[in-house]
Amino acid sequence: MFVVPESEIAGLVSPAQCFEAVEAVFSAMARDEAYNFPVIREAIGHADALYGFKSGFDRAGKVLGLKSGGYWPGNVEKGLTNHQSTVVLFDPDTGRPAALVGGNLLTALRTAAASAVSIRHLARCDSRVLGLLGAGHQSAFQMRAAVAERPFEKVIGWNYHPEMLPRLAETAVELGLPFEAVSLEDLGAQADVIVTISSSVAAQLLDAHVRPGTHLACMGTDTRGKQEIDAAIFARARVFTDEVAQSVEIGEAQHAVAAGLIGAGDIVQIGAVINGTVPGRQSEDDITLFDGTGVGLQDLAVAARAVAAARAKGVAVEVDL
Amino acid sequence: MFVVPESEIAGLVSPAQCFEAVEAVFSAMARDEAYNFPVIREAIGHADALYGFKSGFDRAGKVLGLKSGGYWPGNVEKGLTNHQSTVVLFDPDTGRPAALVGGNLLTALRTAAASAVSIRHLARCDSRVLGLLGAGHQSAFQMRAAVAERPFEKVIGWNYHPEMLPRLAETAVELGLPFEAVSLEDLGAQADVIVTISSSVAAQLLDAHVRPGTHLACMGTDTRGKQEIDAAIFARARVFTDEVAQSVEIGEAQHAVAAGLIGAGDIVQIGAVINGTVPGRQSEDDITLFDGTGVGLQDLAVAARAVAAARAKGVAVEVDL
Repeated sequence: MFVVPESEIAGLVSPAQCFEAVEAVFSAMARDEAYNFPVIREAIGHADALYGFKSGFDRAGKVLGLKSGGYWPGNVEKGLTNHQSTVVLFDPDTGRPAALVGGNLLTALRTAAASAVSIRHLARCDSRVLGLLGAGHQSAFQMRAAVAERPFEKVIGWNYHPEMLPRLAETAVELGLPFEAVSLEDLGAQADVIVTISSSVAAQLLDAHVRPGTHLACMGTDTRGKQEIDAAIFARARVFTDEVAQSVEIGEAQHAVAAGLIGAGDIVQIGAVINGTVPGRQSEDDITLFDGTGVGLQDLAVAARAVAAARAKGVAVEVDL
Repeated sequence: MFVVPESEIAGLVSPAQCFEAVEAVFSAMARDEAYNFPVIREAIGHADALYGFKSGFDRAGKVLGLKSGGYWPGNVEKGLTNHQSTVVLFDPDTGRPAALVGGNLLTALRTAAASAVSIRHLARCDSRVLGLLGAGHQSAFQMRAAVAERPFEKVIGWNYHPEMLPRLAETAVELGLPFEAVSLEDLGAQADVIVTISSSVAAQLLDAHVRPGTHLACMGTDTRGKQEIDAAIFARARVFTDEVAQSVEIGEAQHAVAAGLIGAGDIVQIGAVINGTVPGRQSEDDITLFDGTGVGLQDLAVAARAVAAARAKGVAVEVDL
């Protein structure tokens, strides 16, 4: 089997390759050729850690495996990132372990790729202003992936802790775009595309903030109790997701579903839009909303690309198991 | 992190060390200091494979991780074993991967250790005849672990396919014990301890076969639909298991529970016996029955011992991840 260390990942897969991998597996999911196994997520009662596994099998891409992931809030003090992810791939023909892959950067890239997929397939073609809600570590990845999808001319952003906004400004500079810190009202009034990527537990962006024609990619909510946007927005939006069951349970849609504003049947798997079996945006005035909950197949898809690239480049470490 | 290859395992952990590890984690489970996460088990729709993960956290032993395991029925033709298992351990303080361990032999050893734990804590002290129902690959491991627990003077065995009985005979010779192939009637009439380790889907050992005073360790049933013994035996036995929820769902007890002969409340976690909080055998005439379903914590416990031994011996391969 092969080991691909975390330190090599940056040189192995580009955001564009992650986009391709994530789009392909979303497509396979909607064709029932790839599926996610149930998610394990446990508060382990030690070090305040949340720990679990996301896993699945992509029959189309022949990728089988799991990502173990966890959140260890005390890690930063030890010089480690709080989020720790590792991908293990298996040979679907024999069940033998095929690869062990550092999953931290890959997780950031696949999450960014998912919102970029939603922008490509759902945002207005004439989108010019990109809005970010959230300025944490992941926001830079989301911005970089988003700007590849539309000819954005400006980035605007809001964050609950304004002292973190320089991260957005720096990333915009890196991408050659002007950046402006704005109020939530202005975020909604100016942005054509809004990517939310916070760890909020109450709605920040309100229904009144959001204009017709906006595309929203809600990427921050991946567990019960988190919330980034007003549930009322769901009632007037066309709603898409990576996986419907997860959207309803742990995604941003959980609140709108609990409030009876929408049901699972109102949420479309984005793979169906990619495959052309369900229409995406149907008018310039549609609000399109992508609830990105994060599925194991995304992790496996980008990890498989990383392993292939690592082997081609000669940086995969072969070990006997 | 460390990689411990499958080929090294045999030289790293003895059956006695596996016994200690499994007994300790059963004890921790009953003290609520160790618990198993939900089991993932999927028919993946490729290569007729069954695939999944067992995982958990032992706070007492500080062991966190998972075993991925699967059954690939076409493997033998490729020169591989059909059952494929790999253990991944994580540092519970940081979530960083700690070790990747070949899990095939460890699975056999931990399954054998579980029935041995049940024999030590539940079988009559004067047990002299060991019975085996089943003569597959795993039967040899069960026999070797069992004979360490009582001064057995003879091994008897039955198998649905009698042409496989030489495996039992050879293992008994290796252990210096006489072996006799018997009918199911004689298995029940002569054996003081019976270990069942088949992949049967219908009761083989019937209620009428089993004498008072017998200890039964039912080790073959780990999924819905499998069955080795008459459900009626449960009604007159004192029933123990590794994990009650799993016993009721996928263990040998599933049939007795479905028939209303016993309920979950009638099944005792064997860790409680180990800890002395629930009595084990209370009379020479008790039929004691251990439903060994196999929990992830057993895998993690023996894998952690293997890693420690591999590091001490210098055969753990260190890799950067």
